[in-house]
Amino acid sequence: MPSYKLTYFNITGLAEPIRLVLHQSGIKFEDKRLTQDEWPEVKKGMPLGQVPVLEIDGKAYYQSKAILRLLARKNNLYGSNDEEAFLVDATVDTIDDVRSAYSQYHWEQDPGYKAKLKTNADNKLPMLQKLDEQVKKNGGHFVNGKLTWADLFYAAQSETLSNMLQTDINKDHPELKKLVEKVRSLPNIKAYLDSRPKSMF
Amino acid sequence: MPSYKLTYFNITGLAEPIRLVLHQSGIKFEDKRLTQDEWPEVKKGMPLGQVPVLEIDGKAYYQSKAILRLLARKNNLYGSNDEEAFLVDATVDTIDDVRSAYSQYHWEQDPGYKAKLKTNADNKLPMLQKLDEQVKKNGGHFVNGKLTWADLFYAAQSETLSNMLQTDINKDHPELKKLVEKVRSLPNIKAYLDSRPKSMF
Repeated sequence: MPSYKLTYFNITGLAEPIRLVLHQSGIKFEDKRLTQDEWPEVKKGMPLGQVPVLEIDGKAYYQSKAILRLLARKNNLYGSNDEEAFLVDATVDTIDDVRSAYSQYHWEQDPGYKAKLKTNADNKLPMLQKLDEQVKKNGGHFVNGKLTWADLFYAAQSETLSNMLQTDINKDHPELKKLVEKVRSLPNIKAYLDSRPKSMF
Repeated sequence: MPSYKLTYFNITGLAEPIRLVLHQSGIKFEDKRLTQDEWPEVKKGMPLGQVPVLEIDGKAYYQSKAILRLLARKNNLYGSNDEEAFLVDATVDTIDDVRSAYSQYHWEQDPGYKAKLKTNADNKLPMLQKLDEQVKKNGGHFVNGKLTWADLFYAAQSETLSNMLQTDINKDHPELKKLVEKVRSLPNIKAYLDSRPKSMF
């Protein structure tokens, strides 16, 4: 059995989708959550000076979505053919467009620019409506009634965004809301969610 | 033979990597470059109201990197195994981190914030050094001496960035410079570059 170690901070952020994929796939891993004190030293050893990094038998894999794609290929979470893999990728990119716009808004300090970034981010909201329709058309998942890493990615990112924005971003999107509840009640995921460390985001 | 139609504007931007992958793969396609006048009407028919969109036999594929992944899978530009596919994905994400930071800076109108975005973007520059080292270690390509869509993605994006910044972003990175020259001299790519419409970016 290969050994897995995931290094990130004690937040959901970019690592939570990876945690969900690992748990869903039944892969045991060390879920290392760095303190701010530990970070400067650890940073020096990371391929791009960034986390999350997943080590598999000591080999470092980096860039969160590249890690997710690797795990998804190996654990049957990428659909069954090129068409389904395309739809997974397009869905993830769309989710990520919304996520990155709100994340930028959230972390911005300058009040004037923050207001502008909020408008930019809100302009992405129609994408959630498109995603909601997609789930409706696809039997309760993003892709052909099958569980893929796009579902897990959305469940993690929509939780982070809802925490950042202090509102349930799925409240006007019943299909997305049901999808997230479905993901969160998968036995391996539920066991993780019930026992994970508390964090702000 | 399926029919291919790529719709975008007359700029390199998000579509140029797709154009390079199509040309390199020997796929004939309609390279539709919208005028600003045509856009409002065309926008209504696009899956997310965005371009680029690639239609294959009339079916619309959207999100530029998802389109690239689909074409790369079908045309042997994604490496030969999971490890190589991972390295392609991680490389593309890293290139895209640099691209999106400079693109945001380039398009920002507010002078105060533009200066801040320039600093943010310049903070990503060490990533180009990492990519340069990666090419050196990998026999003149990003992945194991093989042509992948990461090479084509970099060739297209580094040209766009160089035009935006009005400087050759590869000038201090000899391995990246050689890689781009190698891509641009591939016969199908060269034929396209020699005949493509002029555009600002």
